[in-house]
Amino acid sequence: MVQRLKIGCAGLGRMGKRHALNFLERTPRAELVAASSPDPVELEWAKTHLEPFGVRLYQDYDEMLKQEGLQAVVVASATAVHAEQAIKAINAEKHVLCEKPLSTSVETSQSVVDAASKKPHLKVMCGFSRRFDLSYRDAHKKMTTGLIGTPSVLRSQTCDKLDPSGFFVAYAQYSGGIFVDCSIHDIDLALWFFGANSQIKSVSAVGITAVEPDLRKHNDRDNAVGLVEFFDGKIAYFYASRMMAAGQEDTTEIIGTKGKVAVNVVPQMNLVQLSDDQGVRREIPQTYWDRFELAFVTEANEFTAAVLENQELPFKLEGAVQAVRIGAALQEAMVSGKKIFFDESGNRVESARL
Amino acid sequence: MVQRLKIGCAGLGRMGKRHALNFLERTPRAELVAASSPDPVELEWAKTHLEPFGVRLYQDYDEMLKQEGLQAVVVASATAVHAEQAIKAINAEKHVLCEKPLSTSVETSQSVVDAASKKPHLKVMCGFSRRFDLSYRDAHKKMTTGLIGTPSVLRSQTCDKLDPSGFFVAYAQYSGGIFVDCSIHDIDLALWFFGANSQIKSVSAVGITAVEPDLRKHNDRDNAVGLVEFFDGKIAYFYASRMMAAGQEDTTEIIGTKGKVAVNVVPQMNLVQLSDDQGVRREIPQTYWDRFELAFVTEANEFTAAVLENQELPFKLEGAVQAVRIGAALQEAMVSGKKIFFDESGNRVESARL
Amino acid sequence: MVQRLKIGCAGLGRMGKRHALNFLERTPRAELVAASSPDPVELEWAKTHLEPFGVRLYQDYDEMLKQEGLQAVVVASATAVHAEQAIKAINAEKHVLCEKPLSTSVETSQSVVDAASKKPHLKVMCGFSRRFDLSYRDAHKKMTTGLIGTPSVLRSQTCDKLDPSGFFVAYAQYSGGIFVDCSIHDIDLALWFFGANSQIKSVSAVGITAVEPDLRKHNDRDNAVGLVEFFDGKIAYFYASRMMAAGQEDTTEIIGTKGKVAVNVVPQMNLVQLSDDQGVRREIPQTYWDRFELAFVTEANEFTAAVLENQELPFKLEGAVQAVRIGAALQEAMVSGKKIFFDESGNRVESARL
Amino acid sequence: MVQRLKIGCAGLGRMGKRHALNFLERTPRAELVAASSPDPVELEWAKTHLEPFGVRLYQDYDEMLKQEGLQAVVVASATAVHAEQAIKAINAEKHVLCEKPLSTSVETSQSVVDAASKKPHLKVMCGFSRRFDLSYRDAHKKMTTGLIGTPSVLRSQTCDKLDPSGFFVAYAQYSGGIFVDCSIHDIDLALWFFGANSQIKSVSAVGITAVEPDLRKHNDRDNAVGLVEFFDGKIAYFYASRMMAAGQEDTTEIIGTKGKVAVNVVPQMNLVQLSDDQGVRREIPQTYWDRFELAFVTEANEFTAAVLENQELPFKLEGAVQAVRIGAALQEAMVSGKKIFFDESGNRVESARL
Repeated sequence: MVQRLKIGCAGLGRMGKRHALNFLERTPRAELVAASSPDPVELEWAKTHLEPFGVRLYQDYDEMLKQEGLQAVVVASATAVHAEQAIKAINAEKHVLCEKPLSTSVETSQSVVDAASKKPHLKVMCGFSRRFDLSYRDAHKKMTTGLIGTPSVLRSQTCDKLDPSGFFVAYAQYSGGIFVDCSIHDIDLALWFFGANSQIKSVSAVGITAVEPDLRKHNDRDNAVGLVEFFDGKIAYFYASRMMAAGQEDTTEIIGTKGKVAVNVVPQMNLVQLSDDQGVRREIPQTYWDRFELAFVTEANEFTAAVLENQELPFKLEGAVQAVRIGAALQEAMVSGKKIFFDESGNRVESARL
Repeated sequence: MVQRLKIGCAGLGRMGKRHALNFLERTPRAELVAASSPDPVELEWAKTHLEPFGVRLYQDYDEMLKQEGLQAVVVASATAVHAEQAIKAINAEKHVLCEKPLSTSVETSQSVVDAASKKPHLKVMCGFSRRFDLSYRDAHKKMTTGLIGTPSVLRSQTCDKLDPSGFFVAYAQYSGGIFVDCSIHDIDLALWFFGANSQIKSVSAVGITAVEPDLRKHNDRDNAVGLVEFFDGKIAYFYASRMMAAGQEDTTEIIGTKGKVAVNVVPQMNLVQLSDDQGVRREIPQTYWDRFELAFVTEANEFTAAVLENQELPFKLEGAVQAVRIGAALQEAMVSGKKIFFDESGNRVESARL
Repeated sequence: MVQRLKIGCAGLGRMGKRHALNFLERTPRAELVAASSPDPVELEWAKTHLEPFGVRLYQDYDEMLKQEGLQAVVVASATAVHAEQAIKAINAEKHVLCEKPLSTSVETSQSVVDAASKKPHLKVMCGFSRRFDLSYRDAHKKMTTGLIGTPSVLRSQTCDKLDPSGFFVAYAQYSGGIFVDCSIHDIDLALWFFGANSQIKSVSAVGITAVEPDLRKHNDRDNAVGLVEFFDGKIAYFYASRMMAAGQEDTTEIIGTKGKVAVNVVPQMNLVQLSDDQGVRREIPQTYWDRFELAFVTEANEFTAAVLENQELPFKLEGAVQAVRIGAALQEAMVSGKKIFFDESGNRVESARL
Repeated sequence: MVQRLKIGCAGLGRMGKRHALNFLERTPRAELVAASSPDPVELEWAKTHLEPFGVRLYQDYDEMLKQEGLQAVVVASATAVHAEQAIKAINAEKHVLCEKPLSTSVETSQSVVDAASKKPHLKVMCGFSRRFDLSYRDAHKKMTTGLIGTPSVLRSQTCDKLDPSGFFVAYAQYSGGIFVDCSIHDIDLALWFFGANSQIKSVSAVGITAVEPDLRKHNDRDNAVGLVEFFDGKIAYFYASRMMAAGQEDTTEIIGTKGKVAVNVVPQMNLVQLSDDQGVRREIPQTYWDRFELAFVTEANEFTAAVLENQELPFKLEGAVQAVRIGAALQEAMVSGKKIFFDESGNRVESARL
């Protein structure tokens, strides 16, 4: 008989619903057996969309963890409880796929890594979805093959479509700020393309509030550019924005000594172009989900396979802490206006080492 | 309890394997319960990939049809037996998803339609995969919305990557020829975008053997251009090729009185571009599967949903006969060198009606 | 002292003005010394824009030919007098750059070639502007270098922006029809890329009047597709249109046994792209002038250099007759609805030679 | 009789030759009457290419200034003498078109502005060629029209093709550094798109030597990213590189509150694309001249017209000083590793004003 991974989903908000449905319908080797949410509205949704397919529902996450036979948990709740729920799952001997970031705090993020390191038989992964996107993988493979020589400069941006509802202002209170919330993906890409051991030498950043001045109440901005220098002579620079007019514009370029590989330089929704009296135009993805939906499906399937076959995960959990560390430093550099310096051990120092 | 469609797969060759796996793994509302193939090698594959998941295997298609509870069949065998197997399934009260074409013969294709019309409670669909592709659907929607005015000219091509193995020569013996095998998709698109009732007025075609002269033994060509005139003042023209260097190039443009909508004008494999001393380049899909994989998944899911919910299929079976009729006429026009004319009832006439 | 070519311009209409200014301002080695037009309005324009720069003006073309020191003539008058004026210039010992087509009649076109062949010391060229376009030249060079193997199929289109003024109806009376007026460029490209000696085997064509039914009064159409078969196993197919919504769409693809080279697959006005809530869009050239302005400048300069240095012209005059022959055959095939066949000597025959 | 501007060219190196030929051959309203160079090799070239067309040659710039009737000078000599020659020309009552930068020193640049301000009847322009490029102008017009709302973030890069000869090392000694030499164009674009009065608040920058470590001898780098914050809530960030594999990659994006306008997001040499077994590829410009040749021609023509018609120049000379000021600050920030802050009057301050 075929073995399938019994998994539960923690959180049924925007991302939780997606992860739950991915494990239910698009991950053949997994079986969604449980889901939890403290929110009655979310549970109501689950009664229609999950329960009829054999998924047990819980209001209490801790109760779910006790379900007989549960092998793994996907943590897709609010960022504030990611770490706590991940650690509880680890302690309950469950494999964990945790949505990014582990936490907006470096220390809390580290605590998840510490918990996981005590249970090396468990698979614990932070869901950096772009690592599962076919285009990013192809780009990475091309780099690894040597097609661009030594990668030296990385430009990457995570730019959301303008949401005029003001959602981002409330969201900013808990998001960790634009560099931790958006640029975390770009930072993770830098660590993937430059190597997980890349040590930062300095960060500087500037930000503005072009459309949403109220973001300043939460020390946040709606457009920000960050500049990261690594000790081995590499540069990464990031742009994050909340005000794209056309849609989601997540672009990455890696410039090497012999070539350049780029992903999504001109965003596009599909393969259609329309010609009319305004010219020739293409629509673009409206959200990160439009852009990365299939990456999330691949993530669910590969996490499942890694657990079932006890194989190595595609990347290590430690990087998730390093990404938050860089994101938080950029956020601080932006808010304080100061450039921040590090020594080769990762400790802060007062000034640049030339 | 949730109802799932019990379906069997006839044929486990190149396409059969894909359909079987799609219904097994990527169609949550369907349950692949059976598969048949007369080929021992194919059955061996199925023992590894299907049987462990509860799929019963048959050497004899007729036996499979008798399986208790079987509700539907996907016919993905050799083209030569499509019609026979589809009709048997219909007569056995099964819903049918039949790979294109129903047959390379107009009459045989019509016999499937006739069989289906006697069982209006059954869902019988010919698998024109492009109808399920998101880009084609978006293009069709844009046209329907009026963005291009009245559609007037359609250009469409199905161009395969050069396969230097000579496979296409052997294949040509049974394929019906390049217009029936390749352009059938483009013809179906013309019927979709111009309307299923479009009546052909004339067809002309030319073909060459640029890389594979042996194709002439089977009255076939490796590059062909066909020109179809419709009675309501519309034109469709098609290009089919077996010798693309870069990969699969399936492009379609619909030109209307107020605009143009185009699909896949410049093919692309993914969102990656590579810059090196040769310039900036993108890879393109190597096969129709690279290009249309997700369309086949959607096809399986929508066919399943239509059966389970007893809803209308997205398009009628009759069009599949009309597509073969036009494809066969183009093939004949190419081989004979003659332009072929029709009256408004679809009968052949000797000369153009001006 | 530096020698400059003394040239006169016949005709000061839309194209005449452009040629006159090109020779006046953008052809350093030429000196525009004369211009003629029977039209008082055009002469009035010339008094402001040409006369102050030393250009003598004539109402009578024959008078201009007598101007002391005149060495060459650019014939940019109405198509109906192209041939007559070109022949007169040749007979008056002038070098000639004649706008396309030499004539809408094959016989009249041939008469220019005959006149020129009696004066082999004169440079007589028909202005197929695309031969001077850098992109077409680069494409041709890539083909010649062997990058696409043996060129086998050529697709080319000349598609004008919709002009709702009805201009094209009046124009159609003298234009020779859409295949002679528009597709002549694409036909010339086929002769350039496939070789000047390519012999046609058959032509077929269909046309519609999607926006301008009155064109039928002049046996013309607003959208037409033509299919040309050559004796050496090559195919060219052409699309011409008068109703593009976005602007001028002149696209060409040459498919070879080892690759494809394409020009202007997605038209663009410049290097700008605009992102707004409709997506990402680019404007495209509105007219052939927007697209080919620099090609006309190169044409003027290269014609001038060929005369001054007595070097071979970039292509032979004979091709201009062959292009009209093919264009006229396509027009006839479209209007009569009949496929037209030729033997290898270029004579018409009744049916296809298989 | 038609008046033409009598102009002399100072310097006949790489850029001098180009300016000389542009004024000689491609600027109908100008007359190149003189050219000077201290270099015998350059003068030898001029004897062949300029003298036969009536251009007087000088070894001594001061002598050229005395030529009877000379009205204007294009200063295209080595950067080190730009300012001196420009000031001498101004004092000799000549109009001046001076290649960028006026000087690598802010003070010296300012001295040209001071000299010019004493002669308001003279036209003195610094040649920021991108201001004359049709794509940049179209982008600026689209912004001015309001299509992107309020411009807020500008990304711009000037990236040269890798020159493995080591030329850039020697060049770096006098170039002012990568930010003054390359990014000066991007900085000028920021001043153009954000407004000439934009006041900088802070600059930070990092640079690496990925291919040419010897550049450090001259305090320069081969890849650098700079970040500029303006007082009115705008951000500009720049990337400059000497190691592009495919060619010249000069890209600019202006992100506004309602849209984005971008120039040259994917560079291209022309309209050709080649498909082969590597995919679909386009070549790109190899040098800034490939990309901006026509902009230099327009520059020459518009400067000429402004002088002849005594009209305002398209932009003010003062901006050239501001651009050098920002470029030099970026260079200093890169070399020192320090972030540099300014108050609203442009004075340096110790720390960020929040």
